Parts: sequence; C-alpha cells; structure tokens
Amino acid sequence: MAERGAYNFAAGPAAIPAPVLARAREQLFAGGKGGGLLERPFSHPDTRALIAGARRTLARLLDLPDSHRILFLAGGASHQFAAVPLNLLEGTEPAVYYDSGYWARRAHGEAARFGTALLRALPDGRGEPLPDDTAYCHLTLNETADGRAWPSLPDCGTVPRVADATSCFLAGPLDCARFGLLYASAQKNIGPPGLCVVIVREDLLARPASRAPATWSYRRQAEQDSCVNTPPLAEILLASLVFEWIGEEGGLAALAERNRRKAALLYAAIDDSAGFYRAVVDGAWRSITNVCFRLADPAREADFLAAAEAAGLHHLRGHAQVGGMRASLYNAMPEAGARALADFMDDFRRRHG
Amino acid sequence: MAERGAYNFAAGPAAIPAPVLARAREQLFAGGKGGGLLERPFSHPDTRALIAGARRTLARLLDLPDSHRILFLAGGASHQFAAVPLNLLEGTEPAVYYDSGYWARRAHGEAARFGTALLRALPDGRGEPLPDDTAYCHLTLNETADGRAWPSLPDCGTVPRVADATSCFLAGPLDCARFGLLYASAQKNIGPPGLCVVIVREDLLARPASRAPATWSYRRQAEQDSCVNTPPLAEILLASLVFEWIGEEGGLAALAERNRRKAALLYAAIDDSAGFYRAVVDGAWRSITNVCFRLADPAREADFLAAAEAAGLHHLRGHAQVGGMRASLYNAMPEAGARALADFMDDFRRRHG
Repeated sequence: MAERGAYNFAAGPAAIPAPVLARAREQLFAGGKGGGLLERPFSHPDTRALIAGARRTLARLLDLPDSHRILFLAGGASHQFAAVPLNLLEGTEPAVYYDSGYWARRAHGEAARFGTALLRALPDGRGEPLPDDTAYCHLTLNETADGRAWPSLPDCGTVPRVADATSCFLAGPLDCARFGLLYASAQKNIGPPGLCVVIVREDLLARPASRAPATWSYRRQAEQDSCVNTPPLAEILLASLVFEWIGEEGGLAALAERNRRKAALLYAAIDDSAGFYRAVVDGAWRSITNVCFRLADPAREADFLAAAEAAGLHHLRGHAQVGGMRASLYNAMPEAGARALADFMDDFRRRHG
Repeated sequence: MAERGAYNFAAGPAAIPAPVLARAREQLFAGGKGGGLLERPFSHPDTRALIAGARRTLARLLDLPDSHRILFLAGGASHQFAAVPLNLLEGTEPAVYYDSGYWARRAHGEAARFGTALLRALPDGRGEPLPDDTAYCHLTLNETADGRAWPSLPDCGTVPRVADATSCFLAGPLDCARFGLLYASAQKNIGPPGLCVVIVREDLLARPASRAPATWSYRRQAEQDSCVNTPPLAEILLASLVFEWIGEEGGLAALAERNRRKAALLYAAIDDSAGFYRAVVDGAWRSITNVCFRLADPAREADFLAAAEAAGLHHLRGHAQVGGMRASLYNAMPEAGARALADFMDDFRRRHG
C-alpha cells in the first residue's frame, strides 16, 4: 500500500486493493494442522479447493461460457509469448500479429522464433481478410507502454483470436466467447507478479502442441486443473482475494464505469490544457487503463515527475520506449487518485504555463 | 506453521522456518512511498537491491566460485526439465540421464522430447565412461519420492554435470564448482512454490540455446539479473529471508550436522525394529532428507498414518508412486520433530509388534 494520501500509478507490478492486502496478510501466513498454504502438499484438499474456488469465482465474474477453461500458470505474459506459438503454431500455417505497439511487437518477436508469424499494421477499416489457413490472429488488447487499446475487435472470420489481455483484464466485462485464447499476467488487475491467467477454448486444446513443455501445455494443465506441477500458490491466493473483492465492488460492469470516469478526468485535464499537455494517443484508440501524455515542452517533464512525486503521485514515468508520463488506472486506483492527479496537472499548468 | 507441538513432514511444499514466516508477514505487505514490493515497478532500486542481495547472500552461503551465476526463475523444477535441454541440448549430441528414481525419469522423459536423451542405470563402480560428445550428464542428487541420494558424484570426465538439486539444496555444503548447472525448486529448503534457483557455469551460457524461450534463456536471464520480465518477487523475498536465516543458524555446515542427526534418529528407529519397519533404500544411497519406509505388514500402514496424524505428525504418506511412509527432514524440521517421530515409531511398534 502507498502511504495515506499518496497514489500509486505504476503500470505493473501495480497497486493491489488495500482490503486484499489485509486479507492476504492474514491468510497467507495462517498456520493450522500440518502447516499453512505454502507448507503443505499441493494435493491437500484445502489447496485444491483454493484453486477450484479461484477458478469458479473468476468464471462467474466473466460469465465465462462452458466452452472455455481457466488455467493458472507460473510466470508472466512474456512466458506466454512463447507458450502460445509452442501450443498453437504447428506446421507451416502462419499466425498474424497486429502491430498495436511495443508489447505486440515483443509478442510477435518471440513467436517468430517458433514458427511463421506475420506482423501486420492495424486494420484501416477497409478490411483485409486473413489468409484462410491462419493458425490464429494475435491482438494486444491494451498496450501498456503506448496507451493504446482496441476500441472494438477486428473481424477475423473463422480464425481464432488470441489476445494478450494483461493490462485491461478485469477492468470491465469481457466477452470471452469471442476469443480462442486469452492470457493476462497477474501484476495489473489480478494481483502480484509470478502468475498468468490463461483462458482457452476447448477446441484449441486438441492441437498437438508437440513442442510445448509439459508445464506449458494448455491441454495437460487443463486436464490437471493447473497442477501439472506445484503452481504459484501465494499468487493464486491473492488472485482469489482480488476476484472476491471485485464481486464486492459490484462486479466488472461497475468497475468499468468507475474506470471510464477515472480516465475521463485525466483526458479532460490534457485536452483542456490548450496544448500544454499532449495525449500520446488520440481518438477511439485511447486506453482508459494507461493514460500516456507528454508536455509540449519535453524539457519540463523531469520537473513534472519530480513535483508529482513530491505531491504523493507516484510512478508516473512513462515506459522507457515511449518516454513522457503514464498514469495507470487499474481497479485498485480510486477515483480520488485520478482526481488528485487531474488537479495536480491543472495546478502545474497554471504555475508553468 | 504447524500447530504447537505438531510437526510437518511434508515433502514439498514443506515447512518454512517460523522466524522466516514471521518476517515475511511483516515485509511482504509493508507499504511505503509508492507501494510495497508487489506493487511497484521491478526496476525500482529497492526491488533490484532485494534480488541482488538474495543472490549475494546465497553465493556467500555456498562459497560460490566466480565462474557460476545465480538465476531466480519463475516456476518449479518441472519447468527446468524442459529448460535444461532447450538451453543445453543442440544438434545431435546426446545427454545422459542417470536413472536414480522417479524424478530422474520425469526429467529424462521431458528432455527426450527435445533432443537425444539416454537413460542409464546407476553406475556400478566399475565405470562406464560417457561418450565424448555427451552434451551433459544429468543427476537427480536426491530422489524425493524414492528416498535415494547420490553418496558421491560419478566421474563424468569433461562432460558437464547438470543436477536437479531440488530436495537436498541447502541441506548442507555443496561444491558448485563440480557442476556445470544446478537447479532447485524453492519449495523444499528455499521457501514457497513458484520459484526455481538455477546456478550455471559461465561457459555453458555460450551455448546458442536457439530453442529456449526468452524467459527461459539462461544467458538472457544472466545478462539481466533474472529480470527478462518481472520475476516472482514474493518468492524471492521469502528466499532471501531463508538465506539469512541459514546464516543465523550457523550456515550450511551446521545445518548438515543437524540434518544428519535427524536422519540417524529415524533410520535407527527403522533398523532397530527387528523388521517391523523396513527402509525402502539401504546402505550408502539412503537419503538423509527424505526417509522412506514401509511396515513389514503393509496392511497396517493406514493405521500408522492415521495414528501419526492424531499425534500431530503430519504429511507422512509416501509418494503415490512408492507408497508407504516418507518423513521429509528439511532444514525447518527441528531435531525435536525427528525425535518425536522416532519415539512414536517405537511406541507404535510396541503396541502393534
């Protein structure tokens, strides 16, 4: 937790809701007969119940169709950059990766090491159908570094959509039925680093995946409820507490409303600044999760960041590949935090404009 | 922690020292400027200092030569079953896996999916030199399921020894100079599941590893101090606390003495039982970490396990592939725990012998 009155705008690892941290502190180190969660065989009924419970709570939040399975895997989204092609890219069929920004290119670069992966510019609306034999079409739903998010999903015909949902996962409702596979590392809206949630449609589990390591095989992990080997149990506990907290907050639709209001405050502070601030992304592609912006005078950005830190507005430095500022507005960020930043931006502009 | 007066003999995830759990409870959820460990960018100086500190403390405990690098990777030893051949097994050179038991065969089975991996019986002392072009020779130093441990290392000539050290790592001094690569999942003597320590000699980092996913590339992880992507930070914190605790306990030599005494108590209870108990492994290959034993009358084993549970001696059921009983005596198990089990075994024998 950040100090009282301070706000944590980190892009990930990122703020975790305070009630979740308080419960985790109690539950993670609770002892009991034969040791606590981190000290007993993962075949223990309470451990299996934790995993199954986390799975069910998440499925309920997402209103997940029966056709889709939830896996809890060790590592982050970068591990899935390789696991996806090793599971889904066999033979000579290509995968298509849409170049939405930094993380899409990272995902493509890794996939290209394991098969034919084509990098394609974002669709211009005139449509350019995918080759019929495309193994899958990869989307980075929200570009954490660039502040860009898909406003709607492209038409992929019968080709399965595979999405890196890391930074927008659980920021609002998500129609998983429209995806063959989704993956999201935990360190944004799910909890701490070290865990990746994978949601996969059952027909994709039939692909041979002969090159996938056993611990990365979606089929094997689905068959064994994420227990091919011991999964990252501390992170699964925290994730389960986050899933419950989301329910208490009113569910994904309520969070989506709140998240839109938070982003609107910041984009207003930018758009109403008469050019003092400049959004990195314009129009429909603006992310409501990672608001990236620059000063008209980049030489003043260091002053802005230092003054923000001094005001208790932490971790606003932009991604190294993009520069400038980035305010990440995950679920744990209260509206008051976005308002405090918007007010600070107005004040900084008046003082330096 | 187990309840007062109770002892946790789990094979892993296994008992974690009580002082470590108490410190982790404070430190893991400590807040501070801009959020705690799990909520801030992994480039944060305090996070980098945690990783570097854990690495240095471990190197000091092991008296690690400068030629060897320490990596903290997501996942468990099962992930390394694939990562090892994907990093070290290029072209047509074979790897040799010694068949010491269940986990050696698991490691071999996975490696054989990614290259030529030969399974070889344990050496009989007469020597059977390895083929000159052997890429590496794999040893499972301690077989957690079978209760078998290498009494000394086989002569591998110039072929690098690669070892799964999971269940005996940090149970005593270990001459890492004798290995090209060692890996150990955390959930025995290091801490909680979700982390694997890899120790690799620098010359092996030069192998091309063209098939290794970026997050599994030993070279890339060594270049970036285990931060190719966000590592499992909660587990690294707990590991660093365990490393410090080992120092406070007198270091690895002191722990080795204590661990030998613990095992001697149990093997004495077995060997002095006039055949009521039978050790699964005899002679020099007996593990001091996982003491596996049967009753002469296997039909009574369920009674034994139930009575042990009732007496506060938890998780003594043997591995499903071996059966019987298994007492795991990791560093967190006090001598009093081994003594309590030995006394219970004597008592059970008197009542049922």
